Amino acid sequence: KLQLDSGEIRWIIDSVVGKEDGLGVENIHGSAAIASAYSRAYKETFTLTFVTGRTVGIGAYLARLGIRCIQRLDQPIILTGFSALNKLLGREVYSSHMQLGGPKIMATNGVVHLTVTDDLEGVSNILRWLSYVPANIGGPLPITKPLDPPDRPVAYIPENTCDPRAAIRGVDDSQGKWLGGMFDKDSFVETFEGWAKTVVTGRAKLGGIPVGVIAVETQTMMQLIPADPGQLDSHERSVPRAGQVWFPDSATKTAQALLDFNREGLPLFILANWRGFSGGQRDLFEGILQAGSTIVENLRTYNQPAFVYIPMAGELRGGAWVVVDSKINPDRIECYAERTAKGNVLEPQGLIEIKFRSEELQDCMGRLDPELINMKAKLQGAKVGNGSLPDIESLQKSIEARTKQLLPLYTQIAIRFAELHDTSLRMAAKGVIKKVVDWEESRSFFYKRLRRRISEDVLAKEIRGIAGDHFTHQSAVELIKEWYLASLAATGNTEWDDDDAFVAWKDNPENYKGYIQELRAQKVSQSLSDLAGSSSDLEAFSQGLSTLLDKMDPSQRAKFAQEIKKVLG
Amino acid sequence: KLQLDSGEIRWIIDSVVGKEDGLGVENIHGSAAIASAYSRAYKETFTLTFVTGRTVGIGAYLARLGIRCIQRLDQPIILTGFSALNKLLGREVYSSHMQLGGPKIMATNGVVHLTVTDDLEGVSNILRWLSYVPANIGGPLPITKPLDPPDRPVAYIPENTCDPRAAIRGVDDSQGKWLGGMFDKDSFVETFEGWAKTVVTGRAKLGGIPVGVIAVETQTMMQLIPADPGQLDSHERSVPRAGQVWFPDSATKTAQALLDFNREGLPLFILANWRGFSGGQRDLFEGILQAGSTIVENLRTYNQPAFVYIPMAGELRGGAWVVVDSKINPDRIECYAERTAKGNVLEPQGLIEIKFRSEELQDCMGRLDPELINMKAKLQGAKVGNGSLPDIESLQKSIEARTKQLLPLYTQIAIRFAELHDTSLRMAAKGVIKKVVDWEESRSFFYKRLRRRISEDVLAKEIRGIAGDHFTHQSAVELIKEWYLASLAATGNTEWDDDDAFVAWKDNPENYKGYIQELRAQKVSQSLSDLAGSSSDLEAFSQGLSTLLDKMDPSQRAKFAQEIKKVLG
Repeated sequence: KLQLDSGEIRWIIDSVVGKEDGLGVENIHGSAAIASAYSRAYKETFTLTFVTGRTVGIGAYLARLGIRCIQRLDQPIILTGFSALNKLLGREVYSSHMQLGGPKIMATNGVVHLTVTDDLEGVSNILRWLSYVPANIGGPLPITKPLDPPDRPVAYIPENTCDPRAAIRGVDDSQGKWLGGMFDKDSFVETFEGWAKTVVTGRAKLGGIPVGVIAVETQTMMQLIPADPGQLDSHERSVPRAGQVWFPDSATKTAQALLDFNREGLPLFILANWRGFSGGQRDLFEGILQAGSTIVENLRTYNQPAFVYIPMAGELRGGAWVVVDSKINPDRIECYAERTAKGNVLEPQGLIEIKFRSEELQDCMGRLDPELINMKAKLQGAKVGNGSLPDIESLQKSIEARTKQLLPLYTQIAIRFAELHDTSLRMAAKGVIKKVVDWEESRSFFYKRLRRRISEDVLAKEIRGIAGDHFTHQSAVELIKEWYLASLAATGNTEWDDDDAFVAWKDNPENYKGYIQELRAQKVSQSLSDLAGSSSDLEAFSQGLSTLLDKMDPSQRAKFAQEIKKVLG
Repeated sequence: KLQLDSGEIRWIIDSVVGKEDGLGVENIHGSAAIASAYSRAYKETFTLTFVTGRTVGIGAYLARLGIRCIQRLDQPIILTGFSALNKLLGREVYSSHMQLGGPKIMATNGVVHLTVTDDLEGVSNILRWLSYVPANIGGPLPITKPLDPPDRPVAYIPENTCDPRAAIRGVDDSQGKWLGGMFDKDSFVETFEGWAKTVVTGRAKLGGIPVGVIAVETQTMMQLIPADPGQLDSHERSVPRAGQVWFPDSATKTAQALLDFNREGLPLFILANWRGFSGGQRDLFEGILQAGSTIVENLRTYNQPAFVYIPMAGELRGGAWVVVDSKINPDRIECYAERTAKGNVLEPQGLIEIKFRSEELQDCMGRLDPELINMKAKLQGAKVGNGSLPDIESLQKSIEARTKQLLPLYTQIAIRFAELHDTSLRMAAKGVIKKVVDWEESRSFFYKRLRRRISEDVLAKEIRGIAGDHFTHQSAVELIKEWYLASLAATGNTEWDDDDAFVAWKDNPENYKGYIQELRAQKVSQSLSDLAGSSSDLEAFSQGLSTLLDKMDPSQRAKFAQEIKKVLG
């Protein structure tokens, strides 16, 4: 790094490295290592960040990388301090960190799951959250003794529309009496409350079993889009969001909740009540397709029992049904509908405009209405018999008038006819739902069903642990069914769908201990034959065998050798 | 379904099921099955949708679920037809399908990767795309003979800023002479061209090897946000997006490109030139944290060789560096910088405001400037010697004046001092980059390095195929290094980083055939001992052995039995 300067030699410093690590690229290296580890941690275990003080830069990234995040209402999550931003922008745009990353921003855009007023509330929320998830990944769900009887009927009855929170946790009636919802009293903890309010997400318990719940707001909610202080001509906007419709933000919220619940090992309940996805220009531009696709992807990869239930007074249509249908993940999703629930591709009004247009209605009148039939016959007669022009014209006018008079009635009939295709009975008949489940009994039905499917899952997991992961969940369940029915053949009960009987059977390992042992033997035999299958491994095989013998104690070794010699003959 | 009506019996139809499947919930079931399959296909193989006609509803979802999407410029991707939307909204809001889901919407929001004018262009683009990806997932890259010499120097020289497209594919100079970029002539196919223009993404070839490329726009680009026809008071907005800064949309684009490249099995080049993430209120609200976190996640899980190179005249700072640092994925990412490249946490102007504030500059002057030292000594003397008040005041004024005079100079010196901490040499000295790579030689250097790392990867994959997936990529590479250095010990060459020598070694399987066989034997031995490890499996073990013997032909069986008896002793 030298330079000649009229003969003289001068040194130019071109870098300052510093003997010890200071504040510089070396810090970035460390930040990246944490970021990578925390991103991986979200995938592999339970992560939760409590923002109890100002969280800046890499801190803000960590809060997001761990996804689950509780924010203290008075502490911001920001990338850059407000004064640094002002300097960058060359004017006093921002006046505080809170303006940038306070709960008004972070609790309304999906970063923050819960907000709390102080550290105590934060910590108690962390403890509560932990009480809903297994102690270790893949471990058993922390099921508590239910304080709220699992077989109590659902007392909240939706009238015209189904209030999601009342359906989940119940509601007090005008006399202050609690009308119970589907889930255990006081068990529902809502998350993302301030974000995309047309979908309601949270964790609840059903008979003491923790579950993830997604439900649908039926009221129109206002979405507040804050003014951008960086743009002088912008102003705060309040955009109405219709209930029962998925928008880009509420679809993203749904997908995020699915991902979180799945990672937490929670069974899933979707109280499905959507008329569809909003497909306006703005929605398409803002990524409704991306968000909807993520729902599909996150349900497809859901690994716990999932229940989709169209609740009382609910409906599910078209695109909205597609993304939560049982075929998205046949291993896990079961669909049910309440007796009054409606579902189809289109709404009846929309359907008749395609399948029962006004011409078709007129044809229909011509076939059915005696007066019209009569007039049309006369008209035909007049035309053939060369009736007078005024006669023909007046007949035509009468026909038109009659048609006009009948149209509203026939339209109503057409709509009614279309509606008859929307019923829960038709869904069951076509096999797209498993069963019609009445509202009052939904709690007790789903409690039993959930308990049974968890039972099934635990056993299926054990089987896959033995047989290996290439053995699918579906094959495992088929094997269980085989064992179960074989065990029960003697008793005469062959009802695979009897949830109580199954749970009782599963809870006594004696019922299938033999099968499990047999499966284990099969697996060893299979692996052994795979191993020695290629002759190139034969040498390795005997080498491995000798290693194995060396590890055994003498008596064991003798017994083993004897056993093998017997086989070799 | 009967009802009594004053004694008379009437039947009320409460559902119409239909003997044959019609248009209804049964269709939704089928749509869901396709959606699930296509979503899975994106994860497991190569998916690409060419929208050659109007694509509606589930069709639009499929276009997105397969992610890669080519749109014909005259065909829309929509959820609901415009006339149905108008009916729903009760007024004539939309006038065409194209307005809803034409390329103005879909090619600017990340759904559409490429647009074409006709079917021929569409199909030829599909073929071209396919020519960049392996014939089967996990298969070898389709490497062609390079038409553009890999060792030619990069002739495009960035002056003040690095033009991303010129750096990738070269540029014609004022005389029409082509000045080559880093990648092969005419090999670059840009995707997402209309979306988030401050990041440039696409596929190119380097010496005939297909790679994914992400580069950075340095100019300010305008983002066009269309007016929402559904909202009467909205209007089209054009928002300036500064170059070299990540915004929510460009960060999402970066993350999406990473995901696509990774699934396609492509090696990755990031020509990193970012000053940071934009952390304004609007950016935070619109999900900059979510998007940036997805970059981390998608780089962390990148499975092919990845190169991050700060190009000539480029810089990389703070948060932007964190998310592409080699520590995000130490197995795959290697970082390099051009000699002129700059990088640090903050920019020098920002840094001195924290580390070299004006008081510190004044202290510095007080230590270094002879005039100030002199005046301060005098002042001290005057104070101690009870000098007259006017004297003291005038001295103080002189000091202030001198300080004011010196401040701009010292600020400059401070900035220069800070800049000296930003150099590529410091990055190399601190080990956060692997090497300083000069611009002209970058093409030939990265070609050799890429070839070598692909070689290494192929062998590592073979090793993991034998040893099992729990054997990490890192362990596999360490094993290769061990083998390589052992092989070369005789020749005296012990340079692990000699890329050409490594490729030559790898290309001759004789060099490591023995090691591979040994590894296979170890694996068999290990599995065998795992299998028979628990005594409960002992029975299964002999059972499996007998199954295996049954499968062998007699001569083989005899040889095998003899071998084993020898081991048993």
